[in-house]
Amino acid sequence: MPNKPAKESFVTEITPRSEDFSRWYLDLVRRAELADYSPVKGCMVIRPYGYAMWELIQQALDARIKATGHVNAYFPLFIPNSLLTKEAEHVEGFSPQVAYVTHAGGEELEEKLVVRPTSEAIIGTMYANWVQSWRDLPILINQWANVVRWEKKTYPFLRTTEFLWQEGHTAHETEDEAEAETLKILDLYADVCESVLAMPVVKGRKTESEKFAGALRTYSIEALMGDGRALQAGTSHNLGQNFAKAFDIKFQARDKSVQHVWGTSWGMTTRLIGAAIMVHGDDSGLVLPPKIAPYQVVIVPIGRDDWRETVLPKALDIQRELVAAGIRVTLDGPTSGHNRTLPVEALVTGRLHPRSRGRPEPPPPGVPHVWVPSRRIAPERDRRSDWDRRLDGGAMTM
Amino acid sequence: MPNKPAKESFVTEITPRSEDFSRWYLDLVRRAELADYSPVKGCMVIRPYGYAMWELIQQALDARIKATGHVNAYFPLFIPNSLLTKEAEHVEGFSPQVAYVTHAGGEELEEKLVVRPTSEAIIGTMYANWVQSWRDLPILINQWANVVRWEKKTYPFLRTTEFLWQEGHTAHETEDEAEAETLKILDLYADVCESVLAMPVVKGRKTESEKFAGALRTYSIEALMGDGRALQAGTSHNLGQNFAKAFDIKFQARDKSVQHVWGTSWGMTTRLIGAAIMVHGDDSGLVLPPKIAPYQVVIVPIGRDDWRETVLPKALDIQRELVAAGIRVTLDGPTSGHNRTLPVEALVTGRLHPRSRGRPEPPPPGVPHVWVPSRRIAPERDRRSDWDRRLDGGAMTM
Repeated sequence: MPNKPAKESFVTEITPRSEDFSRWYLDLVRRAELADYSPVKGCMVIRPYGYAMWELIQQALDARIKATGHVNAYFPLFIPNSLLTKEAEHVEGFSPQVAYVTHAGGEELEEKLVVRPTSEAIIGTMYANWVQSWRDLPILINQWANVVRWEKKTYPFLRTTEFLWQEGHTAHETEDEAEAETLKILDLYADVCESVLAMPVVKGRKTESEKFAGALRTYSIEALMGDGRALQAGTSHNLGQNFAKAFDIKFQARDKSVQHVWGTSWGMTTRLIGAAIMVHGDDSGLVLPPKIAPYQVVIVPIGRDDWRETVLPKALDIQRELVAAGIRVTLDGPTSGHNRTLPVEALVTGRLHPRSRGRPEPPPPGVPHVWVPSRRIAPERDRRSDWDRRLDGGAMTM
Repeated sequence: MPNKPAKESFVTEITPRSEDFSRWYLDLVRRAELADYSPVKGCMVIRPYGYAMWELIQQALDARIKATGHVNAYFPLFIPNSLLTKEAEHVEGFSPQVAYVTHAGGEELEEKLVVRPTSEAIIGTMYANWVQSWRDLPILINQWANVVRWEKKTYPFLRTTEFLWQEGHTAHETEDEAEAETLKILDLYADVCESVLAMPVVKGRKTESEKFAGALRTYSIEALMGDGRALQAGTSHNLGQNFAKAFDIKFQARDKSVQHVWGTSWGMTTRLIGAAIMVHGDDSGLVLPPKIAPYQVVIVPIGRDDWRETVLPKALDIQRELVAAGIRVTLDGPTSGHNRTLPVEALVTGRLHPRSRGRPEPPPPGVPHVWVPSRRIAPERDRRSDWDRRLDGGAMTM
C-alpha cells in the first residue's frame, strides 16, 4: 500500500477512526458541517449538508409509507398533562424525560402542557372521536414532526433532546391485523436501511424491560456500526389495546359488539444520519451511499490560464448533461458565498475528504481531488457542549 | 337556472357562504375533514386531506426556494430567553405571545426556554459563528418548522397557536443586496399564490406599526377573500442591520473593514390552506385549484348488477392510465377503512360536495356524482372551541 501514508496525510483535522471512534465521529460531524452545537443544551443545529441528507432519507421513507396505504397528517406539539398520564406505563416511561410549558401568553397556564416526546396520547384522543364502526378501520396515519426528550447524555444525530422523526399511528379491528402492520413496518424500515442507507440490519424483538412504554411488544432493527457495536435504527410497536383502553377508542364490530381497537406505532429519526456516518465513514472522513449523498458528483474546474474560456464552459456542459440524467451535481465555482458550494462535497465515488482553508494542493496520486471551501472553525473554547463527552460503552438505544 | 334549487339541496350540512361567510368557513373545514379541534386551546389537528394540500403547497414553494439558491437547514425549537431579549423591538413585539418551558427532565430549568415564535434569535446566534469574511456571504438558508404564538382568537388554518411554516433567513454584504433579496422573495411568494393557489395578490409595504418586530421594512402580499376582505398571505422583511447588531454578526468586508451583515427573513404558513378555501369555495363547499387538489380525479364505479366483473375492471384501467399520466386519482372502491378513500373527493372539475352517511341517492341532473364516506361527526357539545367564534370585522393579519 504505497499510497497509504500520503492518503492519510491528506486529512489532518479528523482524529483517525481507528484511533478513537467517538472522537472521530464528533470531529467528522463538525468538520464536515453536518451539524453544529446550539445555545440550547442537548439540541443541535442541522446544517444544510446534513439536512439535505435528511431530506433524501425522508423522501425514500415517505414514498414507502404512502405506498403501503398510509397518509400523513399533523397533530399538536403540546399535550395536556392529564392526557399523557392516562396510560400508566406510558407516563411512567416518559415523565422523567418531558419538558413542560407552564407559562404562555403572559399568564401561568391552568394545566401544564407537555412538549410531545411522542404522540400516542394526543393521537389516541383524536382517534376516539374519529372511530365509530369497523367501517372506519383501519386508520393508517403517519406524522413528520419534531419531538423532545430531555436527555442527560447527547450526541449529534444519535441522541439529541429535540429530534426530527416520523411517527406512524394505526388502529385496527383485530390483534392479528395490528401484529401484521407492526411487522410490515419493521420490514419497510429494514428495506430503507438496506436499500437506501446501504446498511444491513438485524430484526428482533425487544425484551420486556426495553420495550416502548405502554406497548405490548416492541420490535426493532439493529445495525452494526464501524466500531463493532449495535445501534437501534428504528422501532415498531404493537400497542395491543393498551392505548385504546386508556383513551377509549371503541368501535362497533362486525358482530355488533363494541370493542377497543388494536393499535400500533412506529418511528424512525434523524439518528439515521448518524448511523450512515458510523457505518460508511473512514479515517479520511465522511463516505455516503449515493442515494443519500446530497451531491453525487462535484465538478472541479482547474483554474489555470484561460480556464474561464476553455475549462469552465466544458464543465458547465458536463453539469447540464448530468443534471438532465437525474444526478445531483454541483460545480465548484470560483465565486464566493456560503451557499455557492456546500461545504463538503462528494465525488462519484461517494468519498468525502473534509479539508479547510483555501484551494488545495494537488492531491497525492490516486486520491480523488476534492476541495472544501474555507470556513472559520471557531476555537474549541467557544463550542463546549455535553456532546464532547465520548460515546461510552454498550449498545446505543433511543 | 332550473337546476339551482336541486343543486343547493345537494349540500345541506354547510351554511351557505352567501348567508354567513365565517360560519360557512368553519362548517366547511370540519365537514370536509380538513382540520379538527384538538384538546389544546387554539391548536388544530390537520387531517389527512388538509395535510395533503399542505404537502402540495410545500413542494411548489420548496422547489422555488431552492431554485433561487437557498438551502434548507434545521434550528432548535427552543430559544433561551436571554437570546430573545437581545433585539429590543423583537422581544417587545413577541413576548406577549410566547410560551415558556420552565421545567424539564424532572427539574426546574435555570433559564426558561421560549418555544420559537420565529427563529431570528437562534439563527442570528449561529450566523455570528458562521460568518467571518465577505467570502462567507450571502447565507441563504430556509427552514420548514412549527412555531408557536399564543393567540387570543384563533381560526383553523388562518390563525392558530401552533402553525407550520417555512422561514427564510439570509445574510448579505450590502443593504442593496438585502433589499433585492426581500423583494425577490415577495415576487416568489406572489408567484406561488398566483400560479399554484390560483389566487391573485396585491404586493405592498406594511406601515411602521404593522411591520415585523425588529425589521427595517416589511413587505407583504394580500389576497382578496370571497367576502371581499383582504388576507395577508406572506411577508418578507428587510431586517437591516438590527439583528446583526443585536447578535454580533460581523464580517471582514472587501475593503478590510469590519461590518455588520444585512439581513432578511420571510415566511409563508399553513394559513395558505385557509386562503385557498376562502378564495375558491362556494355554497356547495370546497373548490380547489388542480395544483393543490390531493385528488384531481375520483372514479366512482356505479355498483349495480355484475359491476365487479364489468364496471370495476374498466374503472381500474382508467385509473392506471390517469396515474401513468401523472394525475392524482383515486377509485372510490367498495371496501371499508378510514384511508380507503379520503373523506372529501374532487372530480375533474375540482368541485367538491361534502355529504355524509351512506351511499348517495342518484344525484340530481347536472350535478357531479361525489360520495363522501360516512363519518361520525361528534355532537357540537363535544367540540367546543374558541374557533367557534366568528371571524370578525377588519382585514386578518398574521
